[in-house]
Amino acid sequence: MIEECALGQDVIVYHPDLVNLYDCAIGAGSSVGPFVEIQRGAVVGANCKICSHAFICGGVTIGDRVFVGHNVTFTNDLYPIVTGQYLLRQTIIENDVSIGSGATLLPVHVGQGAIIGAGAVVTRDVPAWAVIVGNPARVVRQFSGREEWERFAQSQPSATVSG
Amino acid sequence: MIEECALGQDVIVYHPDLVNLYDCAIGAGSSVGPFVEIQRGAVVGANCKICSHAFICGGVTIGDRVFVGHNVTFTNDLYPIVTGQYLLRQTIIENDVSIGSGATLLPVHVGQGAIIGAGAVVTRDVPAWAVIVGNPARVVRQFSGREEWERFAQSQPSATVSG
Amino acid sequence: MIEECALGQDVIVYHPDLVNLYDCAIGAGSSVGPFVEIQRGAVVGANCKICSHAFICGGVTIGDRVFVGHNVTFTNDLYPIVTGQYLLRQTIIENDVSIGSGATLLPVHVGQGAIIGAGAVVTRDVPAWAVIVGNPARVVRQFSGREEWERFAQSQPSATVSG
Repeated sequence: MIEECALGQDVIVYHPDLVNLYDCAIGAGSSVGPFVEIQRGAVVGANCKICSHAFICGGVTIGDRVFVGHNVTFTNDLYPIVTGQYLLRQTIIENDVSIGSGATLLPVHVGQGAIIGAGAVVTRDVPAWAVIVGNPARVVRQFSGREEWERFAQSQPSATVSG
Repeated sequence: MIEECALGQDVIVYHPDLVNLYDCAIGAGSSVGPFVEIQRGAVVGANCKICSHAFICGGVTIGDRVFVGHNVTFTNDLYPIVTGQYLLRQTIIENDVSIGSGATLLPVHVGQGAIIGAGAVVTRDVPAWAVIVGNPARVVRQFSGREEWERFAQSQPSATVSG
Repeated sequence: MIEECALGQDVIVYHPDLVNLYDCAIGAGSSVGPFVEIQRGAVVGANCKICSHAFICGGVTIGDRVFVGHNVTFTNDLYPIVTGQYLLRQTIIENDVSIGSGATLLPVHVGQGAIIGAGAVVTRDVPAWAVIVGNPARVVRQFSGREEWERFAQSQPSATVSG
């Protein structure tokens, strides 16, 4: 269900009955897959793709053109205790970041254009245009910016090109 | 849907239409988020928090005041084969344990008050009041008990304090 | 919901209202748990078990008698960018493979009878009858074939035997 959300123009929620979005903001042109929860206070920018099974909690702010893969999990509390207070920590995802499916993020800052590998567990801030993988995730490659990264991505062998 | 479950007093299931709970027991005061499956024979204690996307299978017994983060996955079979018998193994989670979001647990015993890091893959028993992280998860810190652990957690820097 | 799928005889979808299956094929005798998405173009063989929270994308072809654990995530794009083209990569899972819960797979070829550990992140092709675990996943054991693997699995200690 979708409750009390600020949805920008042309936001697509493929299966409104199979999501739980409440008191959050989603920017124009973004899409949201099934089995996604986006909690109170979370902010998603414009033209993002939020894939199935992703979980975005309060305290998370996501920029524009961010890819949030399937089954990506954000957090906002380093030491969860059921009883008593908890300390809400912020996560910032800058524009053009790609978060691979199955990744888990502690409350961190992720710089513009960073690429987080599938299944990575991100425990520290990520520099812009860095590629990080593993658990805990470490930088394995550093691009100078968008051009170098797109050139690299498109040079990889592949059987098919899709739209 | 919720079928044939023994729910204690004041159990909260935020979205009954978006869960699959059957033939399980959940203790008083516990809460269950959306996209959660809890299977036949699983036992959840009192005042637990079962977050969205968690999966709790038969063979899992969870104590009181346990935090089960988002997207936590339990298992009950080390060598799953589609055809033929399988060997059900038990998991025991003692009181006051915190299981970070995105963690995966093999069938193990987790001692009281242990803290399992986000994204950890737990392959061995966990001592009481230990902190474990990684894949496979290893102990990175050992508290003497609740007091030391709460003092530590509350001493960490944070932007906001929430209720 | 189930849309435009080719379902073989006796396919069981436990909760049709809690899945998102579209334009995919699922072979006879297979079962699908809740909170599962199987996308356009994905192919699942006969007598498979697709557990709750699994995500199977287009480009994935799964053989017969494959166990896909809870919360298993496939991928089909190594360098996802929200804007522009993407390069669809294929994943092939041969017969009799077991994929442990919480595993994440990059687009790879997995040989017959391979066993992928719970929480593994699979970044490279997997030989037949190999056991791989970790992030990135590495081979930790190599069986000669089905007989050796079943003998090993059944020799492991366990409290209970289930059907």
